[in-house]
Amino acid sequence: MRLAELSDASGVSVATLKYYLREGLLHPGAVVSRTQADYDDTHVERVRLVRALSEVGGLPLATIARVLEVITTPGKEWLEVLEAAQRTLLKPVSDKGFGGAEGRGRARAWVAKRGWFVDPEDPFLDELDRAWAASDAGGIGFDEERLNRYADHVEGIAEVDIDTVPTEPEAAIRQVIIGTILVDPVLAALRRLAQQHVSNSVAGHH
Amino acid sequence: MRLAELSDASGVSVATLKYYLREGLLHPGAVVSRTQADYDDTHVERVRLVRALSEVGGLPLATIARVLEVITTPGKEWLEVLEAAQRTLLKPVSDKGFGGAEGRGRARAWVAKRGWFVDPEDPFLDELDRAWAASDAGGIGFDEERLNRYADHVEGIAEVDIDTVPTEPEAAIRQVIIGTILVDPVLAALRRLAQQHVSNSVAGHH
Repeated sequence: MRLAELSDASGVSVATLKYYLREGLLHPGAVVSRTQADYDDTHVERVRLVRALSEVGGLPLATIARVLEVITTPGKEWLEVLEAAQRTLLKPVSDKGFGGAEGRGRARAWVAKRGWFVDPEDPFLDELDRAWAASDAGGIGFDEERLNRYADHVEGIAEVDIDTVPTEPEAAIRQVIIGTILVDPVLAALRRLAQQHVSNSVAGHH
Repeated sequence: MRLAELSDASGVSVATLKYYLREGLLHPGAVVSRTQADYDDTHVERVRLVRALSEVGGLPLATIARVLEVITTPGKEWLEVLEAAQRTLLKPVSDKGFGGAEGRGRARAWVAKRGWFVDPEDPFLDELDRAWAASDAGGIGFDEERLNRYADHVEGIAEVDIDTVPTEPEAAIRQVIIGTILVDPVLAALRRLAQQHVSNSVAGHH
């Protein structure tokens, strides 16, 4: 198909598609003539993926380019890819100051106490410190007991995550990275709806 | 304290504090002279809250202004405040096109089947449709069975949410709104760490 048809099929303007091509977010089409290229279903899929990561995942286009590079480079080692993906997904360092020194290391201590088998250098421990400090700043009581209660249920979610990872490595990488970014919004929406269900049930409305 | 001291106490520059004051994100200090005002702990707390909502919650300042207006306006009805908060938290309408017509109404049907007591007009049903469609676009298998497995655990999370809401109305409103925004990042960080724990446990590393 031509670029205009790819635009119709994907719901993204021709100007934006040209931008994606320039930035390497979209692989080039097959050259037909000096001024025309032919696009296929792999291009439609790719554009839908970029839109999903951008509009729902909330990732900036530069980060999407890095994610795509990681998941489309064949032959990389599994662990290496996962670590690259984790780094890609982390917020910029400039955001990390939040919470101040008093909150540093709280997540590390909590994880050790809970007995979770997690690399003590894992950058998501800092993310948890930061998110925990932000909840403190929001003035909502957030103690270890509440964190443990959440963790009981989040372990169940992680089991579903791990369970549904395909065995084929390329598909697994795609699932882990895309799943990490795109399932968070599903879980957030589910949480709002479940809150409504639980509070309506408590109130005896059904 | 003076503005410069508020800056030291909150880690936010004087220029940014002046901007917060102009935009109504920060309440004015007590007037001391024609050119000076006095700030107290309520100002430090407010600045930390704005930073938390901005840097960790990822909300634009205009949305934060609306959230603050909702939680600091006394005398509003509980349900009215919750609805205003929900509207405030929703993504702009322009983002809503994602997924196309084929995904519309899937969440509504699923919630009915599951027996969740949820308002069929709830805008988070559209959010779920959108997030679900994005996961489809990401090429990861996301069927009703997987959604049901997640929902089992998310119900547990919502029970913790509802359980920890204080009975005093003003505190409750604050907890629900701030908790909704700021606990999502905690849960996301927990999910990454739990994934690592679960996959290390499955791999027999401990």
